[in-house]
Amino acid sequence: MRKKVVARSLVGTMATLMAVSTVYAEEIVHDAQYNILERQHGEKWQAEDIEIDAKLAEIRDNNGGKRPNIVYILVDDLSYGQMGNRKMNHVMGVKTENINQFATEGLALERMYTEPSCTPTRAAMMTGRHPIRSGSSEVKVTLVGEGLSKEEVTIAEVLSEAGYNTSHVGKWHQGDIEESYPHNQGFDYAAFPAHQQVQLSLMTKEAAFANNLFGFEPSIQSNDFVIDDTFRPNGMVTGLEARKGEKAKEVAMPAGHVWSQADYHAMNVRYQAQAIEQLQELSKSEDPFYLQYWPLYPLNFVHDQTPNESLNGGFMAEKLQLLDTWFGEFLQEMDNLGITDNTIVVLMADNGLMYHYGGPSGLSELIYRGGKTDFLEGGIRTDAYVRWPAAIEANSSAGDIIHVSDLFTTLATIGQATDHIPRDRVIDGINQTPLLLNGEFHGRRDYVYVYQGFRLAAVVKDEFKMHMPAPGMPGAAAPVFNVYRDPREENAHIGMALWSGASFQDMIKRHQLTIEKYPHLPLGKGAPYSGIENLRPETEKLVADFMSWH
Amino acid sequence: MRKKVVARSLVGTMATLMAVSTVYAEEIVHDAQYNILERQHGEKWQAEDIEIDAKLAEIRDNNGGKRPNIVYILVDDLSYGQMGNRKMNHVMGVKTENINQFATEGLALERMYTEPSCTPTRAAMMTGRHPIRSGSSEVKVTLVGEGLSKEEVTIAEVLSEAGYNTSHVGKWHQGDIEESYPHNQGFDYAAFPAHQQVQLSLMTKEAAFANNLFGFEPSIQSNDFVIDDTFRPNGMVTGLEARKGEKAKEVAMPAGHVWSQADYHAMNVRYQAQAIEQLQELSKSEDPFYLQYWPLYPLNFVHDQTPNESLNGGFMAEKLQLLDTWFGEFLQEMDNLGITDNTIVVLMADNGLMYHYGGPSGLSELIYRGGKTDFLEGGIRTDAYVRWPAAIEANSSAGDIIHVSDLFTTLATIGQATDHIPRDRVIDGINQTPLLLNGEFHGRRDYVYVYQGFRLAAVVKDEFKMHMPAPGMPGAAAPVFNVYRDPREENAHIGMALWSGASFQDMIKRHQLTIEKYPHLPLGKGAPYSGIENLRPETEKLVADFMSWH
Repeated sequence: MRKKVVARSLVGTMATLMAVSTVYAEEIVHDAQYNILERQHGEKWQAEDIEIDAKLAEIRDNNGGKRPNIVYILVDDLSYGQMGNRKMNHVMGVKTENINQFATEGLALERMYTEPSCTPTRAAMMTGRHPIRSGSSEVKVTLVGEGLSKEEVTIAEVLSEAGYNTSHVGKWHQGDIEESYPHNQGFDYAAFPAHQQVQLSLMTKEAAFANNLFGFEPSIQSNDFVIDDTFRPNGMVTGLEARKGEKAKEVAMPAGHVWSQADYHAMNVRYQAQAIEQLQELSKSEDPFYLQYWPLYPLNFVHDQTPNESLNGGFMAEKLQLLDTWFGEFLQEMDNLGITDNTIVVLMADNGLMYHYGGPSGLSELIYRGGKTDFLEGGIRTDAYVRWPAAIEANSSAGDIIHVSDLFTTLATIGQATDHIPRDRVIDGINQTPLLLNGEFHGRRDYVYVYQGFRLAAVVKDEFKMHMPAPGMPGAAAPVFNVYRDPREENAHIGMALWSGASFQDMIKRHQLTIEKYPHLPLGKGAPYSGIENLRPETEKLVADFMSWH
Repeated sequence: MRKKVVARSLVGTMATLMAVSTVYAEEIVHDAQYNILERQHGEKWQAEDIEIDAKLAEIRDNNGGKRPNIVYILVDDLSYGQMGNRKMNHVMGVKTENINQFATEGLALERMYTEPSCTPTRAAMMTGRHPIRSGSSEVKVTLVGEGLSKEEVTIAEVLSEAGYNTSHVGKWHQGDIEESYPHNQGFDYAAFPAHQQVQLSLMTKEAAFANNLFGFEPSIQSNDFVIDDTFRPNGMVTGLEARKGEKAKEVAMPAGHVWSQADYHAMNVRYQAQAIEQLQELSKSEDPFYLQYWPLYPLNFVHDQTPNESLNGGFMAEKLQLLDTWFGEFLQEMDNLGITDNTIVVLMADNGLMYHYGGPSGLSELIYRGGKTDFLEGGIRTDAYVRWPAAIEANSSAGDIIHVSDLFTTLATIGQATDHIPRDRVIDGINQTPLLLNGEFHGRRDYVYVYQGFRLAAVVKDEFKMHMPAPGMPGAAAPVFNVYRDPREENAHIGMALWSGASFQDMIKRHQLTIEKYPHLPLGKGAPYSGIENLRPETEKLVADFMSWH
């Protein structure tokens, strides 16, 4: 409600604008770029918000006053087009029939932008903030003694404070220190690996003998020159489980056991079972729930010794098809529990495919160029589908720009939890509830600042995308692409885009000024594996090695 | 029926095989590669054919004994993914809602191969033969005094002899001599341009001032060095109309008139009106009809001076969106006439997009690499949808390989016209009626010989595609791609494909032996514009220039 007061002020005179700054203290703080939009559309949006609030109230009334449950399923490393579309299924020789069906049951968000890698995308969604603001821009693979800061406020905390029950199952990848674990970041229950798939599927004997891994596995080459055993980290923590307020425990990993692809598969099977278990548990309560299921699949680095099912047969393609059947089971369980109608289900991927394993993985560049780690559309555009039968029109789609951080603000709005969003920092996430409920052309974002790690690499506005110019090149001559006409960003029309150079430069200045006013916050720091009560001896040794230079 | 006798024989002993050759005289002659398949599946296919024949008879019984009408709509230069899919619509910023809807009303043929350019694809469909066999491999742009030979037997002739009424409206591009015109190749009625869009949309003042054309238009540069006026052909014939047995007449082109983009648009509008007119006329008869509507759009080379409608705004993208509305009107007229249920409608493109106009046309490479003129999948894979409510399952799709020449044999089979297919030459088209009626995995082709003009450029088998090796490179080391895993054909895995080298070489030998046994036939030759009764003076001059060196 408070926002609307500001919106009205913003369209007033300059004098009013000056006065607004005091009101901002109670407002969610957005990037200056968003305020530019609000200045232009504030009155219309205010009217629409009133209508939306009434709709949401009506839906709650129809559900005995209960707010909707929310399920957020985030799969790992799939580029736009790789799930939810029959035509693309035929291209890839993979069937995702359950996802294809799901994609027609709600709103397909066809221009969803993410960050280019796992940790940043997940941090953006969790905090509603570009990962640069929370220090979460980098992907960490082994021990780092770092993680999402306790100062950050996650969507789980926001919804939890507003009365939601919260669970997290699957990949987390937000750090290896106690404060960063999901059960310390707003989740009542969490089952998650301490790291990610490089450890779980790539650092194995199977991957080495399949020629997908250099030299980590000692039995695949002579190691006569090896003097430093710590360069290859052995003994890392695998799967953890915990409840809020408890210490975490490593599970299914006896001391001395050597991790293998079979363990990775078993972990995936376990998370699928636990996700369904959580669904069953959470749906028993009178209170609504927020369940995150972040599967590790389809990211995978080696064939199992089982017959493949897809026409493609690649080691990631296979897991994509398997994941589709699991997704079908999950949705079926929602039907069985009778919670489908008033549960929002968001399904998307965290970033583009890990194309570095192109051929044998079975998945390659499809429509957009690039993949994970790239600022090209292939790195930061993913399929995204939202179903909420009580409120969202079936078989609809929208080409409006949306960024993964918008889910934070949007879900908080729908969950009547926006009072718990902090006002002392920039929230990049925009409330896109109107897009969800009113459909295409009701989005409130027409831009994205695209970071590649700590570097601002590109800026998106409407159908235009500017790649940051090389050092020394004037901004007016930066390469600009039209993503409708040149989806693969192959032909920059510098001359044709000269008119937009100044506007892009203004956008960057606004963004930088916002950062100056609200400086970035630091990543959390601590001892790796703090807050885990059953470290194995091999893990203790690894931690000791790490701490010896800290 | 005769084929079944052979099929049974083929699975018999060598002695039986030797005896079969005499039966072949009555059989449709296929490439040896197909006979290899028939040897393996003859008995099963024979049983399926009996079942299919019964189905077809039943459908005819349900329609008062009438065979289905056939509408074949072939649009110009669109790559796979560019029509009929909502997700791809969002990528391109173009809406093809009518085509998307149509794509769900029947069978989507998701692995349709064409030839890489207009003339060869259209010749392949017309004759059921690879264009190399009829001399139709080359695309001709201006006067050539050549065209589809009267010795070739087209699908229109085959169906016409079996009692179908036949009409052709739109692009033809099979030559500029009398025998090659559609009304002399089996069509009762024809309205068609003598050439194609290079003349009709590119060789204009508008294209020159839009920077899409070099130097043809005299007013855009000084021509002080020009000595030879014939290098720029002026006075070419534009739109023609005729009925079987009549001379052709040029229409809507007064002597002295200078052709412009407005004329091109008017021609497109006229063909749309004439296609609907033909639909109305043809549906009055007791006999079934075969109607070809081959729009010139979306191929286009310049913006009209009218506001664009699509988010994309490119000069081809715009016409794609326009074409979609026209297609909707055409289908609506079918509904109005009550002929939808028992009419087969095939909608597809003739080859990949003309990506040479990438940016400003609005259409660029999408999924597959390459476009028109290329042997890459981007040149020879197109969207293809078949609707026949009486017989084909709605909302189905098939990843089976099919080649555009298969339509010849398939439509002849459904039209009970196979007796009129000549037995003295190779027919590459395979009867794919089982695929249409029984769906995915019932296709009878697992290979395609890919020609680029007169050159065998690639061979497709299952998910594999071999690019012909460079001269001097052994066949075993030819680059082989897996099109599911590497749809853009970017990473040849020569080492991994070594096993297939010999098999691909066998395929090429079989194909060459078939050619030796049944040599290619020559293209028709004659005077350009023969059989046109109202040549303009400027055209007479052009013909005189041409004949002066013939």
